[in-house]
Amino acid sequence: MREGIKDECGVFGIFEHAEAASMAYLGLHALQHRGQESAGIVTTDGEQFHSYRGMGLVADVFNEDILSRLKGRTAIGHVRYSTAGSSHLKNAQPVVVSCWRGSLALSHNGNLVNARHLRETLELKGSIFQTTNDSEVILHLIAKTREKDLLDAVIAALGRVSGAYSLLLMSRDNLIGVRDPHGFRPLVLGEKDNSPVLASETSALDLIGGRIVREVEPGEVIFIDREGIRSMFPWGKQRSAFCVFEQIYFARPDSMIYGTSVYEVRKRLGRRLARENPVSADLVIPVPDSGIVAAIGAAEEYGIPFEMGLIRNHYVGRTFIEPRQSIRDFGVKLKLNPVRPIIEGRRVVVVDDSIVRGTTSRKLVRMIRDAGAEEVHLRISSPPIVGPCRYGIDTPTREELIANQKSVEEIRRYVGADSLGYLSVDGMMEAVGTPPGNHCLACFNLEYPVDISHDMPLDH
Amino acid sequence: MREGIKDECGVFGIFEHAEAASMAYLGLHALQHRGQESAGIVTTDGEQFHSYRGMGLVADVFNEDILSRLKGRTAIGHVRYSTAGSSHLKNAQPVVVSCWRGSLALSHNGNLVNARHLRETLELKGSIFQTTNDSEVILHLIAKTREKDLLDAVIAALGRVSGAYSLLLMSRDNLIGVRDPHGFRPLVLGEKDNSPVLASETSALDLIGGRIVREVEPGEVIFIDREGIRSMFPWGKQRSAFCVFEQIYFARPDSMIYGTSVYEVRKRLGRRLARENPVSADLVIPVPDSGIVAAIGAAEEYGIPFEMGLIRNHYVGRTFIEPRQSIRDFGVKLKLNPVRPIIEGRRVVVVDDSIVRGTTSRKLVRMIRDAGAEEVHLRISSPPIVGPCRYGIDTPTREELIANQKSVEEIRRYVGADSLGYLSVDGMMEAVGTPPGNHCLACFNLEYPVDISHDMPLDH
Amino acid sequence: MREGIKDECGVFGIFEHAEAASMAYLGLHALQHRGQESAGIVTTDGEQFHSYRGMGLVADVFNEDILSRLKGRTAIGHVRYSTAGSSHLKNAQPVVVSCWRGSLALSHNGNLVNARHLRETLELKGSIFQTTNDSEVILHLIAKTREKDLLDAVIAALGRVSGAYSLLLMSRDNLIGVRDPHGFRPLVLGEKDNSPVLASETSALDLIGGRIVREVEPGEVIFIDREGIRSMFPWGKQRSAFCVFEQIYFARPDSMIYGTSVYEVRKRLGRRLARENPVSADLVIPVPDSGIVAAIGAAEEYGIPFEMGLIRNHYVGRTFIEPRQSIRDFGVKLKLNPVRPIIEGRRVVVVDDSIVRGTTSRKLVRMIRDAGAEEVHLRISSPPIVGPCRYGIDTPTREELIANQKSVEEIRRYVGADSLGYLSVDGMMEAVGTPPGNHCLACFNLEYPVDISHDMPLDH
Amino acid sequence: MREGIKDECGVFGIFEHAEAASMAYLGLHALQHRGQESAGIVTTDGEQFHSYRGMGLVADVFNEDILSRLKGRTAIGHVRYSTAGSSHLKNAQPVVVSCWRGSLALSHNGNLVNARHLRETLELKGSIFQTTNDSEVILHLIAKTREKDLLDAVIAALGRVSGAYSLLLMSRDNLIGVRDPHGFRPLVLGEKDNSPVLASETSALDLIGGRIVREVEPGEVIFIDREGIRSMFPWGKQRSAFCVFEQIYFARPDSMIYGTSVYEVRKRLGRRLARENPVSADLVIPVPDSGIVAAIGAAEEYGIPFEMGLIRNHYVGRTFIEPRQSIRDFGVKLKLNPVRPIIEGRRVVVVDDSIVRGTTSRKLVRMIRDAGAEEVHLRISSPPIVGPCRYGIDTPTREELIANQKSVEEIRRYVGADSLGYLSVDGMMEAVGTPPGNHCLACFNLEYPVDISHDMPLDH
Repeated sequence: MREGIKDECGVFGIFEHAEAASMAYLGLHALQHRGQESAGIVTTDGEQFHSYRGMGLVADVFNEDILSRLKGRTAIGHVRYSTAGSSHLKNAQPVVVSCWRGSLALSHNGNLVNARHLRETLELKGSIFQTTNDSEVILHLIAKTREKDLLDAVIAALGRVSGAYSLLLMSRDNLIGVRDPHGFRPLVLGEKDNSPVLASETSALDLIGGRIVREVEPGEVIFIDREGIRSMFPWGKQRSAFCVFEQIYFARPDSMIYGTSVYEVRKRLGRRLARENPVSADLVIPVPDSGIVAAIGAAEEYGIPFEMGLIRNHYVGRTFIEPRQSIRDFGVKLKLNPVRPIIEGRRVVVVDDSIVRGTTSRKLVRMIRDAGAEEVHLRISSPPIVGPCRYGIDTPTREELIANQKSVEEIRRYVGADSLGYLSVDGMMEAVGTPPGNHCLACFNLEYPVDISHDMPLDH
Repeated sequence: MREGIKDECGVFGIFEHAEAASMAYLGLHALQHRGQESAGIVTTDGEQFHSYRGMGLVADVFNEDILSRLKGRTAIGHVRYSTAGSSHLKNAQPVVVSCWRGSLALSHNGNLVNARHLRETLELKGSIFQTTNDSEVILHLIAKTREKDLLDAVIAALGRVSGAYSLLLMSRDNLIGVRDPHGFRPLVLGEKDNSPVLASETSALDLIGGRIVREVEPGEVIFIDREGIRSMFPWGKQRSAFCVFEQIYFARPDSMIYGTSVYEVRKRLGRRLARENPVSADLVIPVPDSGIVAAIGAAEEYGIPFEMGLIRNHYVGRTFIEPRQSIRDFGVKLKLNPVRPIIEGRRVVVVDDSIVRGTTSRKLVRMIRDAGAEEVHLRISSPPIVGPCRYGIDTPTREELIANQKSVEEIRRYVGADSLGYLSVDGMMEAVGTPPGNHCLACFNLEYPVDISHDMPLDH
Repeated sequence: MREGIKDECGVFGIFEHAEAASMAYLGLHALQHRGQESAGIVTTDGEQFHSYRGMGLVADVFNEDILSRLKGRTAIGHVRYSTAGSSHLKNAQPVVVSCWRGSLALSHNGNLVNARHLRETLELKGSIFQTTNDSEVILHLIAKTREKDLLDAVIAALGRVSGAYSLLLMSRDNLIGVRDPHGFRPLVLGEKDNSPVLASETSALDLIGGRIVREVEPGEVIFIDREGIRSMFPWGKQRSAFCVFEQIYFARPDSMIYGTSVYEVRKRLGRRLARENPVSADLVIPVPDSGIVAAIGAAEEYGIPFEMGLIRNHYVGRTFIEPRQSIRDFGVKLKLNPVRPIIEGRRVVVVDDSIVRGTTSRKLVRMIRDAGAEEVHLRISSPPIVGPCRYGIDTPTREELIANQKSVEEIRRYVGADSLGYLSVDGMMEAVGTPPGNHCLACFNLEYPVDISHDMPLDH
Repeated sequence: MREGIKDECGVFGIFEHAEAASMAYLGLHALQHRGQESAGIVTTDGEQFHSYRGMGLVADVFNEDILSRLKGRTAIGHVRYSTAGSSHLKNAQPVVVSCWRGSLALSHNGNLVNARHLRETLELKGSIFQTTNDSEVILHLIAKTREKDLLDAVIAALGRVSGAYSLLLMSRDNLIGVRDPHGFRPLVLGEKDNSPVLASETSALDLIGGRIVREVEPGEVIFIDREGIRSMFPWGKQRSAFCVFEQIYFARPDSMIYGTSVYEVRKRLGRRLARENPVSADLVIPVPDSGIVAAIGAAEEYGIPFEMGLIRNHYVGRTFIEPRQSIRDFGVKLKLNPVRPIIEGRRVVVVDDSIVRGTTSRKLVRMIRDAGAEEVHLRISSPPIVGPCRYGIDTPTREELIANQKSVEEIRRYVGADSLGYLSVDGMMEAVGTPPGNHCLACFNLEYPVDISHDMPLDH
């Protein structure tokens, strides 16, 4: 749906649990919205590593037989997003390597801004690379570091990387979770049957019947071994730069992210959106599923009914074949269909979470009009996107972002809406509810918290 | 989700269109909710029949190469529901046979009540059967009939069958659509680029950019050839017996069924449900996706907020592996997760469309309570189900239906709700809005419109 | 290799054995040379039938899980040959049907000459057909026959068919084996652990560690039930018409066919071939694998060495991709490569079993010449093929058979050999060793033992 | 068949040819006997590398679509053998890496004896490993080497490795072929349409219609770029140590290996075997396919007939399911079946190429006896194997080699033959025909040409 904004990755790890692989399997299923391209699990039985990775959904990649071969009481897993061209099994994670420290497995969510630089430096020193993952860079750094102790090595290695990472590293005896000093991507600590769990979102804990302990903090390293859990902040404090898009669109509404409920944030975004963009209309409809909660908030604020005026078809397979003589607005129609009797003759407010290139919104507005809407008022529960993400989200180039090329009025005309209202940055931050200065707003205001001048992202 | 109620089948046909196979492919995708077990398309180029059937979703069964081999300007297709054991490719439809009339292909939605009787009769006369489909019975009858004209033969053959059928029959030159005299299952006539289309639901027309012409009436035969479309009612008028469950649960909310909007019916069901079952509570949450529209109606009537308090995970693959030491309420958790901050400390009204065995409702109520709900009030937008369906829906046996074994109060106690309210049959009929006596209510009142004493359903 | 001559089918059945499905699986593997397109097994546990069919080799179609689901102590199986276009799973055998006699499964090797006629007759009486197999015709006839007793019905039904069939019919309680009155195709009776076995060739008995009892005779019906084995000849005696190509090419050399060793027949064919076609040469090489035994015989007769001057690559997958700028003699090279040091500067006798279209022989001769042969003398261990087979072998049309269009001298020139020698019909019959008049020689002399004027073969 | 001796790998490369990927595909097909586990091709278009690797046969791994995506005029390929447990896609070759020299791809046949040592050294310096291939070690060494020039780097890197390697390295602009100084494994230089080709065996050139130029010599480096072909011997001369087993068993009989015809060597092995082990018998039969040529030689020498007394079933799929109540000599029977009429009552000489564990020979002798042989005389066309291979062949441990545990007379008794005759080492060398001291005979005499004390083989 979100043409141009792709979810990134999800990670899950569990330490010393009788059903480590099964828990990883379920945890990844609960994080499936964060990546549908590939899924992988690596376990260790204290001696050997056992790994399996495949293209597709968690439920399709793994079966009873494969899970039973993933022996051991500690596991990490990964789900990866899907892009058209560059999807290769070799880029699936977790990455497993052998080095002088023994076997290591890494699951990584995020994007390093100096990956290319580091990679070139490593190559010049004689390193070879087999994937285009940032993760491989991190593993090289860990293997190269002289520190005897794995924990020290991880800290030293990550001291050299810049950018976004919430990662899990597994050795024969340890599970280490790290969140970068800015905390771009979420990472939560929980437990299940007294075994420590680390996951991208709390929904993974809900499914396995686990308990949230707390969010891993920006710059925090969680070191787990048989003795217990140690926490440290080896790089001192930096200003937080939480990705606000996790709250607007990526994370599941039933997750707690950055200590707040995604659902409640989205509802406040919708309320605030309505307050900032008054309209005289008959009903509010969301673009499902991501726009539902904000639309409920907006409907309450506007004081007009909320209706599911667009029905989403969830049965969309891997690829869909387009008929030769193209059907008008085909791409949108495959997933969404308007409920004509609800829309016909009405002034409709449509709530969506973002506009990227504008092409989908344009088709959507046209489809709603074709269903008989008298007026179509488009409301976006985030500010205009003017910059690409450098910290782990797949966005189009700056040139492709419509808000970078057109004014709001021009966008309104392009998408064909009777009115178009975005949420302001201030309104958004108020809805999000954290003290100012703790979020990354680069895609809205081009203030990139970590310098990107000297590097471009690799695949992640 | 609906343990015990399985969707049945969907049919689609198009006559003389340049992209017949592609249209069938898209039409079936829009009907995917009616059956996910298998999908099939048969085309004719006026000489040969070309067919492909496979297990799984439309988007996974077909690819560009297969579609391109389905040559011809007329096509029929079929999607079939999934049950655990008896799913075999040989039972996938459309069924294609060769007989003295040439090649014939049949797509069938519904269930004949005298199929077993007819089959035995045919077998005694020397017929052989290769599937357990009702469709094969119908094709035998058509082949056996002496009438020279295909249309006469279809009419004569169907004159011998009792029960539910909305079917499409394709010959080299014709497309014939028939809806049984009671009209149990829906069937709609439309057109796309001036080519006639027949489909189970209007949503199939929406996706291909077609136009609704009208519902095919109960007992109507639609005969299509190059000359045009002829309509006839060869079996006279009988009382209609529209399946009300199509409106409550099966059909897409964006479809028009029996001439009325499914969305609007569901919303009235929710309003009426609230009116009949008052409660003092803080918010209404639906069991998504099927309960959403009724919940919106109920929330409006109750005058309390509607919230998406349960989040559904749509990424559920073919089979899911259960961990050995079972997670509490595992089956429900895989698909639904409560939004704790919305539910915690609140008196919650949960709107679902039906209770079959009661086991899912029990897990659901427990899960909502575990998420901190102070009170859980379960509201069902249909009356208690006391009888199995004989007309095309896969229901458990009478013994397994909880409403057949327990009073409403006993069910309430079993599922663990603070209150439980069903919709009354009268309330339901008022919400549905058709004159009394036009629906099949057998599952609610055991009044089966077509005698079932002499037969039991085959697989359908 | 044999462009134009395709192996047909193999059948296997076992009655009341503890491992019926496994025995069928192994038996079919031993008959794999008779058909590589599809494989199927049907078992009965005395109540239900269990069946599985798939495209491909026996070892690839079945796995442990599938075999374990084929429950029951009686089984029949089938392997089917591969042709380019018409290979469909729906034509895979055994065919299973339900009729008034209960469930029946049929495995059929051969080709009916009046199938089309019977089919049309049946269709006119109202029968429907779902495959293009002759087997379906036979099952229709059995189901239509009024005789109460299954055995009587089979006899009555087969009384109406003409042509070639070695078939196995399984009901809940019986296994029936039938060989047509001319005995075109082989069928052998054996036993394994006291359980009766029926198979196309004795090699199937060898693999399962069974014992040959005897060949099923032309026109014989073998009826097996719990009481034991009954034999009958319901259609009286007709002249035998054993397919001589089974001995020349189709059957495995380790099989006994028509009571004689295939190996010994082939060796005598080679000896006789040499005697009839003297030559002054340095060595004899076979076209492997089918030409090996005749070449050994020829080398002995000529008194010159036998060498494996052509090496066969057995790793040929389903389809092979031809490079754009075609390699000379590509098709032959994929499978065969000459051993240059053996051939270079030598006068080489090449022994092959037949020439069909001549194109392969031409490439072969050229390839051997390119490897340095001074002279290439082609010797064929059968007479010129002038007529297509109507009894179960897939041959090209009469027009495509080179010996129908050209004299031996013209063929020699076409294929580019220094000399070309065929075996004479008399020589062949002497080598085969049966009294004259017991073989079908239609492909060599156009004397078709069963009238084919009124019909053309269906797919088989 | 050869339980315990597995073929290793095959390599193919072509430089600047219009159909590079297709040629690699065909070349690998012709080398398929050297490895059936996995196949891979990497191409370069001068800018990008394109690669595809998969498990299974060449013809099954690649299809038209995949080949068409392997763009570019230079390609290398690899086939890898199959072992039960450790077969993973990640170990498939060619390995492609990116390093400071750009992208490099490597295909490797052989086994380094100091791979473990090198790997540990590299790991201690901070390198990470993602496979268990020796190839990855070599690529690390090349990347680590400071030499600016790729050729110098390859020479420097290989200067540090000991053991067996015939390898192909591809960069954006070059194709480099190297054979280790002992020349354990074969490698041949050829050309096709004026493009240079490197391949494990000459049969690959035969299939693509190419021409043999000459064998790459031990210790030779072939450097190919647009300017032409350069040859060098950077490591000076060492004594050759050609693997004699290539000639006895591995290579195709139609290949030229070490400048001599495999076919002719095998025939001389058979002759000499007969001369060393006289016997009074009726006929000679080979264990097909590998024993055929030696058996022809032995029969000639003995002056008794050669017969194909064992028939091989080539249709063996990936895995074969064993029936529960095991069939006597099941494993052998699946592949071989005796021709009873040839064997019955006869004194049979059976020619095989080697005995490893002895279990297969025992089953074979028993099977031939069961087929009625009066006497069974086993003749082995190589000396007793007493040591495992360290240079690229997968052999059992020393303890499992029967000739290491038993005398020839004890082996005879174990396998149940009437007589058992091996070829002597001297006889073998005479048959091979090269001056003494040019072959590796370690598996026969435990004289390992390259020290193995300090290392154990990795997977290869």
